[in-house]
Amino acid sequence: MSAPTIKEAVVTLSAGPVAVYPSVLRALSRPVAYHYDPYFQHFFESVAKKAATALRVKEPALLLQVEPAPAIEAAAASLIGPEDTVLNLASGVYGKGFGYWSARYHKDMVEIEVPFNEAIDPADVAAAFKQRPDIKIVSLVHHDTPSGTINPIREIGKIVRDHGALLLVDAVSSFGGMDVHPDDCHVDVFITGPGKCLGGAPGTTVVAVSERAWAHMEANPKAPRASILSYLDWKDAWRHDKPFPFTPSVAEINGLDAVFDQYLNEGPEKVWRRHALTAAATRAGVKAMGLELWAKTEAIASPTTTAIRVPDGVTEQAWVSTARDAFGVVFSGGFGATAGKVLRVGHMGPAAEPIYATTAITAMGGALRKLGHKVDVGAGIEAALAVIAAG
Amino acid sequence: MSAPTIKEAVVTLSAGPVAVYPSVLRALSRPVAYHYDPYFQHFFESVAKKAATALRVKEPALLLQVEPAPAIEAAAASLIGPEDTVLNLASGVYGKGFGYWSARYHKDMVEIEVPFNEAIDPADVAAAFKQRPDIKIVSLVHHDTPSGTINPIREIGKIVRDHGALLLVDAVSSFGGMDVHPDDCHVDVFITGPGKCLGGAPGTTVVAVSERAWAHMEANPKAPRASILSYLDWKDAWRHDKPFPFTPSVAEINGLDAVFDQYLNEGPEKVWRRHALTAAATRAGVKAMGLELWAKTEAIASPTTTAIRVPDGVTEQAWVSTARDAFGVVFSGGFGATAGKVLRVGHMGPAAEPIYATTAITAMGGALRKLGHKVDVGAGIEAALAVIAAG
Amino acid sequence: MSAPTIKEAVVTLSAGPVAVYPSVLRALSRPVAYHYDPYFQHFFESVAKKAATALRVKEPALLLQVEPAPAIEAAAASLIGPEDTVLNLASGVYGKGFGYWSARYHKDMVEIEVPFNEAIDPADVAAAFKQRPDIKIVSLVHHDTPSGTINPIREIGKIVRDHGALLLVDAVSSFGGMDVHPDDCHVDVFITGPGKCLGGAPGTTVVAVSERAWAHMEANPKAPRASILSYLDWKDAWRHDKPFPFTPSVAEINGLDAVFDQYLNEGPEKVWRRHALTAAATRAGVKAMGLELWAKTEAIASPTTTAIRVPDGVTEQAWVSTARDAFGVVFSGGFGATAGKVLRVGHMGPAAEPIYATTAITAMGGALRKLGHKVDVGAGIEAALAVIAAG
Amino acid sequence: MSAPTIKEAVVTLSAGPVAVYPSVLRALSRPVAYHYDPYFQHFFESVAKKAATALRVKEPALLLQVEPAPAIEAAAASLIGPEDTVLNLASGVYGKGFGYWSARYHKDMVEIEVPFNEAIDPADVAAAFKQRPDIKIVSLVHHDTPSGTINPIREIGKIVRDHGALLLVDAVSSFGGMDVHPDDCHVDVFITGPGKCLGGAPGTTVVAVSERAWAHMEANPKAPRASILSYLDWKDAWRHDKPFPFTPSVAEINGLDAVFDQYLNEGPEKVWRRHALTAAATRAGVKAMGLELWAKTEAIASPTTTAIRVPDGVTEQAWVSTARDAFGVVFSGGFGATAGKVLRVGHMGPAAEPIYATTAITAMGGALRKLGHKVDVGAGIEAALAVIAAG
Repeated sequence: MSAPTIKEAVVTLSAGPVAVYPSVLRALSRPVAYHYDPYFQHFFESVAKKAATALRVKEPALLLQVEPAPAIEAAAASLIGPEDTVLNLASGVYGKGFGYWSARYHKDMVEIEVPFNEAIDPADVAAAFKQRPDIKIVSLVHHDTPSGTINPIREIGKIVRDHGALLLVDAVSSFGGMDVHPDDCHVDVFITGPGKCLGGAPGTTVVAVSERAWAHMEANPKAPRASILSYLDWKDAWRHDKPFPFTPSVAEINGLDAVFDQYLNEGPEKVWRRHALTAAATRAGVKAMGLELWAKTEAIASPTTTAIRVPDGVTEQAWVSTARDAFGVVFSGGFGATAGKVLRVGHMGPAAEPIYATTAITAMGGALRKLGHKVDVGAGIEAALAVIAAG
Repeated sequence: MSAPTIKEAVVTLSAGPVAVYPSVLRALSRPVAYHYDPYFQHFFESVAKKAATALRVKEPALLLQVEPAPAIEAAAASLIGPEDTVLNLASGVYGKGFGYWSARYHKDMVEIEVPFNEAIDPADVAAAFKQRPDIKIVSLVHHDTPSGTINPIREIGKIVRDHGALLLVDAVSSFGGMDVHPDDCHVDVFITGPGKCLGGAPGTTVVAVSERAWAHMEANPKAPRASILSYLDWKDAWRHDKPFPFTPSVAEINGLDAVFDQYLNEGPEKVWRRHALTAAATRAGVKAMGLELWAKTEAIASPTTTAIRVPDGVTEQAWVSTARDAFGVVFSGGFGATAGKVLRVGHMGPAAEPIYATTAITAMGGALRKLGHKVDVGAGIEAALAVIAAG
Repeated sequence: MSAPTIKEAVVTLSAGPVAVYPSVLRALSRPVAYHYDPYFQHFFESVAKKAATALRVKEPALLLQVEPAPAIEAAAASLIGPEDTVLNLASGVYGKGFGYWSARYHKDMVEIEVPFNEAIDPADVAAAFKQRPDIKIVSLVHHDTPSGTINPIREIGKIVRDHGALLLVDAVSSFGGMDVHPDDCHVDVFITGPGKCLGGAPGTTVVAVSERAWAHMEANPKAPRASILSYLDWKDAWRHDKPFPFTPSVAEINGLDAVFDQYLNEGPEKVWRRHALTAAATRAGVKAMGLELWAKTEAIASPTTTAIRVPDGVTEQAWVSTARDAFGVVFSGGFGATAGKVLRVGHMGPAAEPIYATTAITAMGGALRKLGHKVDVGAGIEAALAVIAAG
Repeated sequence: MSAPTIKEAVVTLSAGPVAVYPSVLRALSRPVAYHYDPYFQHFFESVAKKAATALRVKEPALLLQVEPAPAIEAAAASLIGPEDTVLNLASGVYGKGFGYWSARYHKDMVEIEVPFNEAIDPADVAAAFKQRPDIKIVSLVHHDTPSGTINPIREIGKIVRDHGALLLVDAVSSFGGMDVHPDDCHVDVFITGPGKCLGGAPGTTVVAVSERAWAHMEANPKAPRASILSYLDWKDAWRHDKPFPFTPSVAEINGLDAVFDQYLNEGPEKVWRRHALTAAATRAGVKAMGLELWAKTEAIASPTTTAIRVPDGVTEQAWVSTARDAFGVVFSGGFGATAGKVLRVGHMGPAAEPIYATTAITAMGGALRKLGHKVDVGAGIEAALAVIAAG
């Protein structure tokens, strides 16, 4: 093997791509079928249906052959027409970023932006609609991963639906790790992927599109066709008797199949519970060590990623790399506006296990100590154990 | 498992996605690393370099996170500027199709089109340049898979370079199965992928871009940025100390690593030889059975895919599905303009083994006989064996 | 990789170890659990029960941590006591060989031996009982793989049971490929393994032991204990709350689980049918090529392995190695008394597919031709196709 | 899947079978070759040589197709002749147990037994030779896993060699995790396996046999032949041109190949260092929590397994199962004479990483607290971190 000589991580607690479940790794090594062999055509359909079961929607899910970031770009291109006014809700790097894509397609955009450690207030959304009744599309990032914060999707969804607008949600790093689904949140384009809470490999995107959203795209004169930016191309591709717009990523679809088996077989409620418990134990440990959460209030702290402020006198880069070198534990740093400001611990998929909260605390604390920053790791562990015991 | 009840194929001899080498399947199941972990950053760089070794170019290859069709769309978007005149060479479905993408970006397009069972004549390319010295970009499909025909890339490349134009080549289903490389064919954007002759999974694209082509893209005012259609976003992403524009498909990159190991360890010349021998044996058998090759002359028949005319009284669909049902052997039908007209046998990756020429002949012949079409399968086998013995 | 430079086979049609189903290969790569972790203890029990379902017996099967040859040695050691008279039925190399193991433990042995291309006549068994009513144990190889011949197990089983003796059967290379089970054949120690018709990896043995046989072992004063030769040590090891005599081969047990899933999910009857059809097509092709089956009559030719006489002027070794070198197809030669006399084609597990009958014929015929021996390969293929078409 | 509903472990820190390296799991899923195909014959030889490189011996290693316990039984059967006097050194369950196997074959046995938390004193070995100059074979367990204690193999080896006796050593759970090799310790039959410190699957045994030991076996009139108990059967089986006594466990050999690649590529010294450091950190944490090591002195505590006394008021069973239930962490209990008395933490293969010392301390401590036993987990973590920092 000519791979580089850096040793692989011992424990990956990143904010994604995350460690992948063994069952999914094995599925990725299934034989690769010809995409127009009837076996694969039926298999693809079955995966789209399995995804729908997980998403709790009726129509088979849209399976896109790119990871979520470009799939969100494509959603903007497909959904936002030249007559559309968009309300962009920006509580973090990804929320803010959507606005730039929107600008390529919309007529006008209203933006509600809050500091990137806070959440959107539904009252502000209601107020925006009052001021701009022409808002046709609302875009929201449910969990803005670079901040580790959660927006009140249910309340926002209700307001958007009441106003007859369409809601596009990036639920990439929340779905599968907490109780959030398109229908009960009134989401019209619900975008998620296997590479976060579902514990799969990155490389595809799973989308639930409402009938209203399909109609809007079909009416959009600029909606891309014969393009990687097109949602419409793939609308019927799940049917075993319809063609694929281009070759699907067969190995990734094999992996997706196992991703949903893993999730549904364990039981969503159980999966969410261990995500929440791991995050809660991590937060307790972080605070007991004298560190500070990035999220302004614990109420909006994500159950799938914990962002921790980098303490004074330490750099994010040094903290992350010391944890890696000394313990083989991989964390994420910040991203975009949070770069340099936070260390992030992912609690996603197979890493969403309470014992890893203690691993995270030990590695974070041990690394800080190496860097000359005093922390009481023992207290952190005790606090995490108390949360786990209360379970 | 909730997979459908259609049994998986026994032998896949499709035109791609093809059966994948066992070593690549195993690589697809390697642990998924966090993309910003130094291990993965160095690993990604090493794969880009390994790809360059295979492509025989100096600069690490561009690794794109989509399969080749959208990567070619992105090449059109990135390379073709609003002042560019394009010469599109169309000898098959894919060649013709490129023109539609080109039309979104170019100023003007000249097209040379030949019947889809023939190859482009380099003299026609020279003539086109004489008539339109403003041609800036030439696009060519080296192996137009739906036809199973090969274009004279070396001769065309020489002419294009002599005129100072840029040559964009789709070598997706030829590279890795025959002796074709960017530099000796004067190709500026050389696009290939793991899912054909290299025997890997589809889902990524490997591109060699010349310095001249990078300069042209950088000068293109409409070249996409912050987009899945952008080549420029990924230009430096192979460097371990540069960011990724979005999350790479980690599992696919794991697979790519093994794809190039497999190819380089076996030895390219050996790999090409078994592709050529398998194709030659297949053609001999086809003719001995009284069937007709689609390619107008055997000289332009691809060493990686053999397209055979569907005989009168039989439908492509019946032929393909009977071979599948009776023998578990998977073939491709035609595509686009060749749909309904040909059955295609892939000789790619692990299927490029002479014994599979006889498998193909047996299954094709046996299926025709079931459909009431008389063929001398025995004669087909004997002819193939003679080619293999002379091999 | 420092593996030797011999290329791996393209198609393995050996008499075992055979090519393994992809689903089983993947199962072999499941995480290895600690054997006393409750997960594994329950898992082991579930595999023993799944094996029993496949064997159509009530008690969970005995899972031994060695491949069948030593498991048969252990059966002799465990079952045959110092007061036991054994009737050994020898119609092949393995049948004959059992007598040598028996000799270490029995009081006396009666042997019926027939030429190694014939089968045991049940009438001779009945006659033996008449002459030696003290026969307590009868040993039979159902399918003597080195000969590719099948013994009439049902008839023999009836006679043995009627006389109150115990029947020990080596069904290693027949179970899973044809309709044979312990209870309907009155077998008391029914030994099989995953590495033949079940398409798994070699390395374990699966045994059904009747209550009468357990009682006999428990009464055997010389039955080994605390030994790899002991059956009794493992009698209760399938229970999740009982200890293992020594560490089970965890990866092999993972593989076994998938072996039985594969068999039961496809459906035994379907599996047997494709074994039988592949063998029949192979025999037809062999004869049409002018070669001779080793089995004296086709009625006793195995549906899971076809043994073909090496024609004059050719050596087994040259035939096998030429097929390997020219086509990448792996066959078995003879073994023991049949070494040098036969080439054997396995039709087992994933190789039990009719298309592989034609692969075998092509590779056998092509190799003979290379060696200067004239055969009509085309006729062989046509004959095989006719059998498959009649299917 | 019909597997039981107990969830798989999150972190396995058992004393073996241990968690297996991902590279080895993938190797277990390599295609299964026919054992007499030249590819496999050469491959088997290459693995035997790779094992010898790891063992630092000249002759290719003996690869046995059973896990170490029966391989040790077979060693007794093969090496100990009816005229041999054996000196059995018993400092633990396994050492004591060897005497029972020896009793089946030897003429006489001398035994030095020490309490199972102590190590053999070389002076006692020297004294035994003085008293019984007829001692021909000495048997030693280097690391008696149920006790987690290490015997002074170098010193003992020197004494045994000086007296011209043969030394048989069970190094199953020490080799690969610390600096111990046959030649520099004067060991004649050095038995180890992949399922402990080498991080592979259990199911095979790797043995280095000295020329003197082979000569002794060959001279042993009772040495088994044509038996699973025979070492002599396999003596030359590593040669690619020699037959196998019975079918090798192909998948396990595939795994072994990766086991030695993993070990040799990382570098033995690095591997030993992380075993030692993990064990040292664990011991420091255990003591800081107020728990007691089983080993009488830390000097004889194993670097690959730490055995900890079960504190008063708690049962081993409750401790182990609470750690499993509350944290998903798997530990081993005691075995044989240590059953009920100790909990054992394995530091073997991929689990030999310092971060897992803290995982072990957290899970042990957290479980004890749940059981009402007070421990200062925080202090345990701090103590472990201090050891790791001193590295």
